[in-house]
Amino acid sequence: MRRERVRDLLARVADGSLPVEGALAALAADPTESLGFATIDHHRALRQGFPEVIYGAGKTPEQVVSIAERIAEHGDGVLATRLAPEAAAALSRALPAIEWNATARTAYLAPSTPLAPSRASLLVVTAGTSDLPVAEEAAVTAHALGCPIERLTDVGVAGIHRLLSRREMLDAAGVIVVVAGMDGALASVVGGLARVPVIAVPTSVGYGAAFGGIAPLLTMLNSCAAGVTVVNIDNGFGAAVAAARILHA
Amino acid sequence: MRRERVRDLLARVADGSLPVEGALAALAADPTESLGFATIDHHRALRQGFPEVIYGAGKTPEQVVSIAERIAEHGDGVLATRLAPEAAAALSRALPAIEWNATARTAYLAPSTPLAPSRASLLVVTAGTSDLPVAEEAAVTAHALGCPIERLTDVGVAGIHRLLSRREMLDAAGVIVVVAGMDGALASVVGGLARVPVIAVPTSVGYGAAFGGIAPLLTMLNSCAAGVTVVNIDNGFGAAVAAARILHA
Amino acid sequence: MRRERVRDLLARVADGSLPVEGALAALAADPTESLGFATIDHHRALRQGFPEVIYGAGKTPEQVVSIAERIAEHGDGVLATRLAPEAAAALSRALPAIEWNATARTAYLAPSTPLAPSRASLLVVTAGTSDLPVAEEAAVTAHALGCPIERLTDVGVAGIHRLLSRREMLDAAGVIVVVAGMDGALASVVGGLARVPVIAVPTSVGYGAAFGGIAPLLTMLNSCAAGVTVVNIDNGFGAAVAAARILHA
Amino acid sequence: MRRERVRDLLARVADGSLPVEGALAALAADPTESLGFATIDHHRALRQGFPEVIYGAGKTPEQVVSIAERIAEHGDGVLATRLAPEAAAALSRALPAIEWNATARTAYLAPSTPLAPSRASLLVVTAGTSDLPVAEEAAVTAHALGCPIERLTDVGVAGIHRLLSRREMLDAAGVIVVVAGMDGALASVVGGLARVPVIAVPTSVGYGAAFGGIAPLLTMLNSCAAGVTVVNIDNGFGAAVAAARILHA
Amino acid sequence: MRRERVRDLLARVADGSLPVEGALAALAADPTESLGFATIDHHRALRQGFPEVIYGAGKTPEQVVSIAERIAEHGDGVLATRLAPEAAAALSRALPAIEWNATARTAYLAPSTPLAPSRASLLVVTAGTSDLPVAEEAAVTAHALGCPIERLTDVGVAGIHRLLSRREMLDAAGVIVVVAGMDGALASVVGGLARVPVIAVPTSVGYGAAFGGIAPLLTMLNSCAAGVTVVNIDNGFGAAVAAARILHA
Amino acid sequence: MRRERVRDLLARVADGSLPVEGALAALAADPTESLGFATIDHHRALRQGFPEVIYGAGKTPEQVVSIAERIAEHGDGVLATRLAPEAAAALSRALPAIEWNATARTAYLAPSTPLAPSRASLLVVTAGTSDLPVAEEAAVTAHALGCPIERLTDVGVAGIHRLLSRREMLDAAGVIVVVAGMDGALASVVGGLARVPVIAVPTSVGYGAAFGGIAPLLTMLNSCAAGVTVVNIDNGFGAAVAAARILHA
Amino acid sequence: MRRERVRDLLARVADGSLPVEGALAALAADPTESLGFATIDHHRALRQGFPEVIYGAGKTPEQVVSIAERIAEHGDGVLATRLAPEAAAALSRALPAIEWNATARTAYLAPSTPLAPSRASLLVVTAGTSDLPVAEEAAVTAHALGCPIERLTDVGVAGIHRLLSRREMLDAAGVIVVVAGMDGALASVVGGLARVPVIAVPTSVGYGAAFGGIAPLLTMLNSCAAGVTVVNIDNGFGAAVAAARILHA
Amino acid sequence: MRRERVRDLLARVADGSLPVEGALAALAADPTESLGFATIDHHRALRQGFPEVIYGAGKTPEQVVSIAERIAEHGDGVLATRLAPEAAAALSRALPAIEWNATARTAYLAPSTPLAPSRASLLVVTAGTSDLPVAEEAAVTAHALGCPIERLTDVGVAGIHRLLSRREMLDAAGVIVVVAGMDGALASVVGGLARVPVIAVPTSVGYGAAFGGIAPLLTMLNSCAAGVTVVNIDNGFGAAVAAARILHA
Repeated sequence: MRRERVRDLLARVADGSLPVEGALAALAADPTESLGFATIDHHRALRQGFPEVIYGAGKTPEQVVSIAERIAEHGDGVLATRLAPEAAAALSRALPAIEWNATARTAYLAPSTPLAPSRASLLVVTAGTSDLPVAEEAAVTAHALGCPIERLTDVGVAGIHRLLSRREMLDAAGVIVVVAGMDGALASVVGGLARVPVIAVPTSVGYGAAFGGIAPLLTMLNSCAAGVTVVNIDNGFGAAVAAARILHA
Repeated sequence: MRRERVRDLLARVADGSLPVEGALAALAADPTESLGFATIDHHRALRQGFPEVIYGAGKTPEQVVSIAERIAEHGDGVLATRLAPEAAAALSRALPAIEWNATARTAYLAPSTPLAPSRASLLVVTAGTSDLPVAEEAAVTAHALGCPIERLTDVGVAGIHRLLSRREMLDAAGVIVVVAGMDGALASVVGGLARVPVIAVPTSVGYGAAFGGIAPLLTMLNSCAAGVTVVNIDNGFGAAVAAARILHA
Repeated sequence: MRRERVRDLLARVADGSLPVEGALAALAADPTESLGFATIDHHRALRQGFPEVIYGAGKTPEQVVSIAERIAEHGDGVLATRLAPEAAAALSRALPAIEWNATARTAYLAPSTPLAPSRASLLVVTAGTSDLPVAEEAAVTAHALGCPIERLTDVGVAGIHRLLSRREMLDAAGVIVVVAGMDGALASVVGGLARVPVIAVPTSVGYGAAFGGIAPLLTMLNSCAAGVTVVNIDNGFGAAVAAARILHA
Repeated sequence: MRRERVRDLLARVADGSLPVEGALAALAADPTESLGFATIDHHRALRQGFPEVIYGAGKTPEQVVSIAERIAEHGDGVLATRLAPEAAAALSRALPAIEWNATARTAYLAPSTPLAPSRASLLVVTAGTSDLPVAEEAAVTAHALGCPIERLTDVGVAGIHRLLSRREMLDAAGVIVVVAGMDGALASVVGGLARVPVIAVPTSVGYGAAFGGIAPLLTMLNSCAAGVTVVNIDNGFGAAVAAARILHA
Repeated sequence: MRRERVRDLLARVADGSLPVEGALAALAADPTESLGFATIDHHRALRQGFPEVIYGAGKTPEQVVSIAERIAEHGDGVLATRLAPEAAAALSRALPAIEWNATARTAYLAPSTPLAPSRASLLVVTAGTSDLPVAEEAAVTAHALGCPIERLTDVGVAGIHRLLSRREMLDAAGVIVVVAGMDGALASVVGGLARVPVIAVPTSVGYGAAFGGIAPLLTMLNSCAAGVTVVNIDNGFGAAVAAARILHA
Repeated sequence: MRRERVRDLLARVADGSLPVEGALAALAADPTESLGFATIDHHRALRQGFPEVIYGAGKTPEQVVSIAERIAEHGDGVLATRLAPEAAAALSRALPAIEWNATARTAYLAPSTPLAPSRASLLVVTAGTSDLPVAEEAAVTAHALGCPIERLTDVGVAGIHRLLSRREMLDAAGVIVVVAGMDGALASVVGGLARVPVIAVPTSVGYGAAFGGIAPLLTMLNSCAAGVTVVNIDNGFGAAVAAARILHA
Repeated sequence: MRRERVRDLLARVADGSLPVEGALAALAADPTESLGFATIDHHRALRQGFPEVIYGAGKTPEQVVSIAERIAEHGDGVLATRLAPEAAAALSRALPAIEWNATARTAYLAPSTPLAPSRASLLVVTAGTSDLPVAEEAAVTAHALGCPIERLTDVGVAGIHRLLSRREMLDAAGVIVVVAGMDGALASVVGGLARVPVIAVPTSVGYGAAFGGIAPLLTMLNSCAAGVTVVNIDNGFGAAVAAARILHA
Repeated sequence: MRRERVRDLLARVADGSLPVEGALAALAADPTESLGFATIDHHRALRQGFPEVIYGAGKTPEQVVSIAERIAEHGDGVLATRLAPEAAAALSRALPAIEWNATARTAYLAPSTPLAPSRASLLVVTAGTSDLPVAEEAAVTAHALGCPIERLTDVGVAGIHRLLSRREMLDAAGVIVVVAGMDGALASVVGGLARVPVIAVPTSVGYGAAFGGIAPLLTMLNSCAAGVTVVNIDNGFGAAVAAARILHA
């Protein structure tokens, strides 16, 4: 149950529109629900501001659907990431209103009451076209968490004027997520130009000594621009959650 | 020149207390100054909110002093990190008012006008006693950047009740920096308990397969608590700068 | 030939119910049997308490069936792990009584006389749903070795209350096997809460800098909870054998 | 406070020899004590059967002495590992009864009432002379935890008859700790010969492609003898704690 | 052209049975032949005792056949390794007398005059059934190079009596090739028991921290039995060539 | 727009054959064009001497075609590398004049006016047949950049006379690109024999401890022949661009 | 003997000013000279345009002096790199005219006749003050090889305006050597701005996940700016030799 | 006791010159002798042809002397490697006849009766001067094992004529040991030129991406010259033992 909904509940008890027993019943649900193969954490929305997100990799379509249905019943919205096409199809059959994003490999069902929007927007900057799936995972996740999104695409440092000519976008953002593979150098340049928090996402784009994303990961961890933080390789989801933690503060 | 000082300058021009020519002269200084072995970026304070910080490793005491003196002349304060004892001693002779922190290996000289404090405080959590030097580097840096500091020390997950019993501190912080070596598991536990941004700093504490900090670095990058971001091994400085970017937003 | 069966044999010689020549014949079989592509160690049951287990990876279905048939003839039971579906199908045709577990990828045929149960039970704790195949391999193996099994599923540290609320299960177990991928932090938390032996199994669940299980492997090797031991990535089988060595002591 | 001592306390309350108020006072001490740089977990002895052990690396002599004095006051005994010579000297001055073991780099002060001995003994097997410091750390730790110790030294597999001729020692042990560097092959051979739990400790002995212990670590993790578990490189302490968990079960 | 054949040629010139001009013509062929995509080294047989071997990986079936036909024309025999099934089929159509070994993935065509057998035999020892493909590559190669072969299969150190009971085979060999994956410990044990040269071949058998053969490779490089030499992971071919260099000396 | 074409434009303005307004229009095109998923850098030809090259990996056929069409419109020629067969087919349909090279996996469309040839030729040397795809990528790229090409194929150091007998080719080249996998030793030998710039390209050819090209990469970075520079594994394209930078100087 | 000196010799023979016998004697010296511990390659100057350079690491001062004296006798100049202070002192005593550069750790003795200067200059760009020793090694070496040097210091990408404001220097250079540690991103940015050959030198500056230079090495190998080539970590010498090969072409 | 000495003993029994009781006494000594910190294997000389060699690293001077004295008493000769200067000094005091080789860091005492020389000589080839300590360890060891030694020094592939001009040495050797750091390419070139067994020893000479010998180790494992075998980094001792196993066959 999301924080806002609990606040509503309590307000209604306070103003007498909800009897204590009704509020108790709504809150009494066991915060964790066991499905045998999974233990759903229904109070995460209350504790962290968003419900548990379904990480699709390594789960069967049946497991994904089963968890999604349980979460959907609470009305807080559903987000699933890293979905195989078969799991996405099964999910669409079970929850027809869910939105499938093929580039991001995510499925999203909006909550019954929309989230309050965050105080500022998230800017997602990508170095190249091949980084788009990770960037889209970040964008979908941030949208689900109530953050407005801006995008700046294919502005890698090999042609740095493409970035410099859009500098006003860096100045307008509340948080910047930089998505880059290969040399990952874009994060350092953006980190040096911007004043706001910069979260770097290395991608597994590249070949040879890119080593599936290790090269940009190391670049970003060693960024000479102070204050750049890093998430795991290809982890657009994690970057967006970190950004939402900042933007909702 | 720090942002606040430029704003003052402009305000004084606006209210007539400073003639245009005087403001021009103050702003006209070339934004970079070349010392032969270094190119000082004097406008960083204006661009990023704090002056260039001196990274002491790999610099001779003479180089450190020379750069510090140039920065100090602008009155925006001086921060130097990773100082060898000899460099610290030389710095204290040159700038007697500078504060040397032996645990953090930092030297700090406050600016002539204090920074506006950030909107919330930074909580620095450490897993063990051996992580203190890195935690102190973070604390000194954040203090220099105008952030109030709280500390929660030696609360590693091997005795998780030490952390759980202080949970209210997690709830009160604006940003949490988690400093941990060995298994680095503290970051995931804190990330799961807190709502606010969590920045994880792996340390090179440990032996054998800790590999100089790679083990906690990987743990933190793979945190099962979504939204934890990571900085380089032992990089207390970088974590504090990232925290300050968030807290001053 | 299992230890218990040899003890029976000797007891029957002692009480006169088995003539010496008969016992000799039963024992005289060459302890190793060569199949050309394999050398079966029939005395392992006598030496180690359980017969040789068939590691299915890298063996053709014909090789798996051929080894299993030879072991089955001794009546001590058969366990095969890491079976490809084709090998499992061939095995089911050859030994119809064998039980195939698709999640664990194991096949198990009970011995003609059941094993004496161990002095205490094994608790298998998993961090997430994706860790289940490894956890099941451990459970099937421990069951084959005569250990009662308890399970605690999907209790990763991102929602640590899920674990803390079931603490009595940690206290009741004789040995705990912790199965976790991604950050592997669960092993340290369990190791700090429990008094009994804790065996950690890293899994290859995760992506990016999880590096196919290296991240949780390192986390576990560096556990700040003293006395946690570790087995190879995804090696549920090995963890169960180690647990059985302890529980049968 | 150690488990046995709490049990005594409670028994004395039960038989009337200790008034309830006195028992309360003894138990009431805050389970954690903060020294600013450390948070001592005084209830670990109660929870885990032995008091918190002081890991000496990365602590100043003053910190080591300060923590040791606080623990010693409780009378449950003190164990410190990885001590630099200066820390050892400071400790000997502060606690003259403490025993310094230069090979193991440990200091040990016996508790006021001896621990109940474990149900079986620990056998420490080493591959070569250079592995002795790690083996001794294991032996001192196990001794402090109440386990009788046997030793089998310099029996690496290059001369396997040295091990085979002492096979009765393997059969008599309750747990076997195998300490080996270079190729680490001894763990597999012992694991195949013994029925009891085998804990392998890789050491950083060797050169070139031993990579500071990675080679034997990998060997041991990949042991073809099922049921061998592994601890961190050079972690004799951890192996002994794991052994004590087993032997005290 | 093989060394023996050149010696024959020269002997025939010496005894007058071959005119100088005929010998010249036979020898005059350009030692390298260019196919555009390959430069065949026809004098390798003369220089090194065996013709150039075709490494099948990364070559199209057409390229394999084309090179094999050119080498076959010289009558010195053909050996191809790492053949994909399609390349093997194409080769069998082009050179019907060639022998395909599906386990070893090799194709071999005997030379028109047999090689002189080596002074002693090669013993190929394998740790497990899954190591057989690599062991067979070694056996086929050594056979092609004129070395008699013995085999000792599935004698890994988890059941060391299987090896000890066949010790006379170790004593009878001229060279021993040890093929092992997982922990690779067999090489050290054999190296300690045998007097003759021992060549270790790590295999990519295993999972998790075996890292595709790195674990046994490191084990073997760090063998505590002096005088064990190592070849690349899965390189049965290279081990056999090294053995043949020794056995033909 | 390529540098030569801008020079022509300006020359025509200078001699009056092109009115200022016409030149302005040709030059006025926005230097970057946004396709949503890509930001094309049309002025790269002007800045760097060749238009942006399309890196095919990670792009859909539709994306490849769309970018290629935009670039083709400027008449400066199109080069695409790392193309999947489907992308190549789509490209051939869209731009029928484009040349597909199946070995190199490149597609090339010549510019409307040919490039001025470079001052000297590029020699591409390969160690083995399996290195040909990378060598061809280098050759196609260099040809597109206006450099004449020579080839020396399959001259690895295991038969060093194959290289030594063609030494005049090393002396005649303006730049040498050495393409080698496995041990990568060819680069050092060529670097020692030649006077001209030598660029080494490690390939992912090989198995086992070649680690997908890391072995030859390290060999080449550590070349004992001074002055050899290195590009990424399998990066024939990058080597050719570097060579063209040199040859057009 | 340097190429120019041989050309002079031959010219003097041609015009009669040197008798054939004198030229023969000068040329007859054995091209390699054995000192027992070293084999000096006196014809390298003739073959490669500069004499053998003494790599000081791992050589005793006596060995360094002995080799330097033999080379100095030929009058072609002496260059020694990676000198320990003792070796430098010994060299200065033996060859008083030699120049010691403490930052670069090089010693240089000019040849009796100066080298012809190269056709263009070398620009050495450094990211930070700590990269200066490597940059100076490159500068001294290039100077010894006859290349004019320009320097651009401390222009890392965290403050990219420092680089952009000096762009005319990039345009004026014949070759650019970029020296950078930490994230190594400067090479990509320079590679995107410049038309001329760019050689990147990663340095071991940095900490934590910089891994002694691996991070910038990978960044540079994966540069998204095509045509950047790379040399070994800290190898300023090698970069300069590569640059000289280009500038003297 | 060395094999030859046992053979003598038995011969003297056979011809009556030694009574059975005397022979028994000589043979009766327990084959292993325990010193507490070491278990000496006195029968290794009998089993493997040479006595146990003392590996000095990680042993105190007292331990080295104590083991050496026990071995010396048997008259089979003593060899100690990797000696620290203090251990060497202590050894010289205890066994004045022992020979200390400062380059190789070995001490050698000849046996009372000389070993029978091997059937052919060992050629030790080194790439550079810095490789000499490892090469000398190989030479001293081989000499102790009865093999005549030849040397070819500083013939790295950057000047390949130095090696080609001495090709007759390669042809004359019974076994060749190639010692090389940096790129390690020399092993492949020698392996391609020679017919006899080639053993490659990578050294930790070099810097940056040589990674303490990993670069040449990988080069050698991936040698494109078939039949090259490899020992551990800097393991001159192991290479010599392997060579002696071959030369004494």
